[in-house]
Amino acid sequence: MTGSNGSTAVSDQPALPKPEGLEGVVAASTALSHVFGEEGKLVYRGYDIHELAGKASFEEVAYLLWMGHLPNRAELSELMQKLGQQRQLPDDVVAVIRDIPTSAHPMDALRTGVSALGASDANVFDDTPDLNEAISLTAKFPGILATFFRLRQGLEPVRPKPEHNTAQSYLYQLFGKEPEEKHWRPLEVYLTLLADHGMNASTFTARVIASTGSDLSSAITGAVGALKGPLHGGAPSKVLDMLEAIGAAENVDAWLTEALDRGDRLMGFGHRVYKAEDPRAEILRGMAREASTPEFFELSRRTEERALEMLHERKPGRRLYTNVEFYSAAVLSAVGLPGDMFTPTFATSRVVGWTAHVLEQVANNRLIRPQSEFVGEVDKKFVDIACR
Amino acid sequence: MTGSNGSTAVSDQPALPKPEGLEGVVAASTALSHVFGEEGKLVYRGYDIHELAGKASFEEVAYLLWMGHLPNRAELSELMQKLGQQRQLPDDVVAVIRDIPTSAHPMDALRTGVSALGASDANVFDDTPDLNEAISLTAKFPGILATFFRLRQGLEPVRPKPEHNTAQSYLYQLFGKEPEEKHWRPLEVYLTLLADHGMNASTFTARVIASTGSDLSSAITGAVGALKGPLHGGAPSKVLDMLEAIGAAENVDAWLTEALDRGDRLMGFGHRVYKAEDPRAEILRGMAREASTPEFFELSRRTEERALEMLHERKPGRRLYTNVEFYSAAVLSAVGLPGDMFTPTFATSRVVGWTAHVLEQVANNRLIRPQSEFVGEVDKKFVDIACR
Repeated sequence: MTGSNGSTAVSDQPALPKPEGLEGVVAASTALSHVFGEEGKLVYRGYDIHELAGKASFEEVAYLLWMGHLPNRAELSELMQKLGQQRQLPDDVVAVIRDIPTSAHPMDALRTGVSALGASDANVFDDTPDLNEAISLTAKFPGILATFFRLRQGLEPVRPKPEHNTAQSYLYQLFGKEPEEKHWRPLEVYLTLLADHGMNASTFTARVIASTGSDLSSAITGAVGALKGPLHGGAPSKVLDMLEAIGAAENVDAWLTEALDRGDRLMGFGHRVYKAEDPRAEILRGMAREASTPEFFELSRRTEERALEMLHERKPGRRLYTNVEFYSAAVLSAVGLPGDMFTPTFATSRVVGWTAHVLEQVANNRLIRPQSEFVGEVDKKFVDIACR
Repeated sequence: MTGSNGSTAVSDQPALPKPEGLEGVVAASTALSHVFGEEGKLVYRGYDIHELAGKASFEEVAYLLWMGHLPNRAELSELMQKLGQQRQLPDDVVAVIRDIPTSAHPMDALRTGVSALGASDANVFDDTPDLNEAISLTAKFPGILATFFRLRQGLEPVRPKPEHNTAQSYLYQLFGKEPEEKHWRPLEVYLTLLADHGMNASTFTARVIASTGSDLSSAITGAVGALKGPLHGGAPSKVLDMLEAIGAAENVDAWLTEALDRGDRLMGFGHRVYKAEDPRAEILRGMAREASTPEFFELSRRTEERALEMLHERKPGRRLYTNVEFYSAAVLSAVGLPGDMFTPTFATSRVVGWTAHVLEQVANNRLIRPQSEFVGEVDKKFVDIACR
């Protein structure tokens, strides 16, 4: 096939073929977590998520993912102490967050804050990621977000208290008052559920970056940017938008019918890997029942039920189930978070999985450098600009 | 296989198998560029790199990669004008760069500056990457780096002049004086050579992030972090370190023998994809001959020749060739750049390829979400902390 300029096409394909998105391709081995999509089962280091949810604290889960076993009391106490000591942000990072316009998305502030942490002190994030860096980053995610959250309301940041656990510290730094158990407990369960999830796009991003020999801050900054995308972690606030637009349980049928007739995608359903109900959705449904107002839970439940029924009617045979985002909206909203803080809160949990994957990658590293299929031309001759 | 805690291992493998780094796996289709590794050939949009180097300006190459054809005069003039108008950084991004400690690596400053650009104005980087955003980012890379470069020397940033091309603007903003042709010309050739290179790790990172539906600043921030790794773009300054340590052509043999006897890896040789000489190395060798001092070129040439001979003697049969990093050191050093600005300068060129790949990805998007091989355990039972 010969093109203009006497060029030769390498491929006969007239247009780019649809990329397959590496679906089904094994990119790395991991002992950290696995999604059994057919069964709707999620395992962290040997434990089904149902074994951990509501029993293990977020810090126990973090220890488990990083170290491979659940901590005993001494081990947990040491980790809690380290986290407590490292929550306070360096002054130069606070200064960077102050320079970010208050109109920015909190994920942009988080990405910039994590990057600034990597620039802050070369002695903390040196070339090879290690566990202490992972602990330090995990300790500081709530502070980066809370600092931005307060500054954009014209409030000053609050100094974290070392005795708080992660869920408590996040709420304390956000709202400036002692968090109530009815808020920090559901948040903590949420954090344990979202801490890791196989080779998802942000985790994969972190591993690709780390595979070049780059530092932990670079890897996690990239992961934050990937999580921001609505096809990955950026959609839970859209579930809230949808539920608020529906307004009340009696409007569900009419609203969903209209949306589906328009061809809109309903938020909170379907997943690349799960072909059964996401076990996290099931646990979060239970949390939402406890934490939300009865009206909001009823609205959520009714929307879920009718959406699944209508989707199955319209696309028979497609296995669509409620995903983790659907009830995240109810739980995080009940805890007092506005919609644009949902994805950042997801990141506050997932930083544990990201850092654990980076540590696993560097322990047994090979540069992740795939090939591309070239569908362009070759052998074109340069033509001077005067003749173009 | 049954482990402790009554757990069952999914795999019989006693340890993690060596990940293959997606070698040989096609991750995406692209019409942008291709590395023909066996032949030592690099093609941008149909043109062999030898057709473009020294003939097409960096802006023509950028246009080619973004738009698919070389620009005519009107098209080039419009692009030059847009770049000129968009070089100046927003005040809030300059403020962020001022907050970064002067001890930071310039890649950390670049990563943070690019992220801050994404937070700076939601109207510039909205959800879907487009060509104007690509032009805006490309225009601002030199300014982010030059601002940090000057501030760390206690100098104030210089306002870019709209009439400068990219190579001139970069040197002008770095050094604060009108750049000489003997400096900006070799830099420009360097920039054309490094603008794209198939599905390398940073480009792949940018595409994975963009595939989630995230924004351009997130994708490019991630790519900067990946390029920083010494297995990807982070090593050219180590070539300079090596050449400086050798000091003079007469020390080459003794120095290299000692290094190889110690088991050190020599910098500037070998590549995952090329099984022949990297064509960019060949062109840069010519540039280095013109731009360096005769002494430094002689030192580089002698080191290259003896290193290749010794590597072939010690590892017969392995196809090791000079890579792009080796003569990058001589060229960038002749242009006046210190070693820690080499990788950032690489980024100033590669941002064109990164943004072109993101535009290609979003034009035909599917979430890049691979699988992982799970080599961990399942079915462990939760044990209360009191009993651990």
